[in-house]
Amino acid sequence: MSPNVEQSAERAADHRKGPRRRGGELESAILAATLAELAEVGYPALTMERVAARARTGKAAVYRRWSSRAELVVDACKLGGVPHDTLPDTGALRTDVIALLGQLSTKMASPLGGILRGLLAEMARDPELAGLIREHIHTAGGPATIHAILERAVERGEIEPWVIATRRATVATDLLRNQFLLFGAPVDDEAITEIVDDVYLPLILAPAPHPPST
Amino acid sequence: MSPNVEQSAERAADHRKGPRRRGGELESAILAATLAELAEVGYPALTMERVAARARTGKAAVYRRWSSRAELVVDACKLGGVPHDTLPDTGALRTDVIALLGQLSTKMASPLGGILRGLLAEMARDPELAGLIREHIHTAGGPATIHAILERAVERGEIEPWVIATRRATVATDLLRNQFLLFGAPVDDEAITEIVDDVYLPLILAPAPHPPST
Repeated sequence: MSPNVEQSAERAADHRKGPRRRGGELESAILAATLAELAEVGYPALTMERVAARARTGKAAVYRRWSSRAELVVDACKLGGVPHDTLPDTGALRTDVIALLGQLSTKMASPLGGILRGLLAEMARDPELAGLIREHIHTAGGPATIHAILERAVERGEIEPWVIATRRATVATDLLRNQFLLFGAPVDDEAITEIVDDVYLPLILAPAPHPPST
Repeated sequence: MSPNVEQSAERAADHRKGPRRRGGELESAILAATLAELAEVGYPALTMERVAARARTGKAAVYRRWSSRAELVVDACKLGGVPHDTLPDTGALRTDVIALLGQLSTKMASPLGGILRGLLAEMARDPELAGLIREHIHTAGGPATIHAILERAVERGEIEPWVIATRRATVATDLLRNQFLLFGAPVDDEAITEIVDDVYLPLILAPAPHPPST
């Protein structure tokens, strides 16, 4: 079928069927292939070889960028984060949090939700994966998005600044994750409104448990 | 080796090596075998045949009591619940909740914790299992234990009665589950104290979000 079978065989041998891709483009292809493999076969069966083949590159190209399966997988899942420039900014804390939980719920209902659910189960068996996921959640995951929203609420005078550094800050996203894991996604609007109105807002407006440190 | 090889072969054929067991004893053996299989091979590889063989009985004896893998597995995990008579009763809400979270954390650090983590991942693939786990959590799991503790706090006048029927009631166990899933078990004492003092107590003492219905 191909006009040049030899050239075609050469391409297949070095795992590329198209023109050579540059750094950023190849990286995106590898990350997209990783998400597709996670959705299809799950973390236990994912290998660097399978990802490389799916991204039409060589195993060496993957290992040059990520030294382990766990690093590759956590990086790939970051693609699914809420981009900072799409963070809700409605002018009020209540509607900002309801909008954020709605965005996260939509994401949980996508294939990424199933992937994250599967990774939670694997954390018990894979300490490297567990460490990377925890680090990601702490530095870039739930806390980063909700903190940006809370900081704007502090500027508007809706809440006191000390709340941001406490465990209260992430209770809205913690309860949404819990709801997703137990009852599936999308989390319905009624549950989101309950989390915000019955729990989150009364909690972050409640008095400080100890004298605030500043 | 056996003094009566024929009798021994007959016993192996009907999967029993010991004397015939009565209802309750056989049921306990099947449930214990189910937990052992879950810990060893996980839910995806668990079969009624494997459970029967491990409990040294026949498949029919298992099917007579449980019509599906999902029913059997959820029943087996109930063995791991906090028995009602070991519920903490320290005379004060704060110390009751801290003690309960400590008990649950110890359980999460046992093989049952890994089993429950694995089942959460399987819920996405198995709607029957998901439905049974949700029902169990609603009727007998977290809510039932924390509700008993909250009812005593209402009797002592520590909290208002309407709190028990709201989403606030289970926030302590919801946050503990979240902490376990993300950071592993046992959950350390500092995290438990933070959940109770910084989040749970201020929350259930905060004013009602809407006029209480009674």
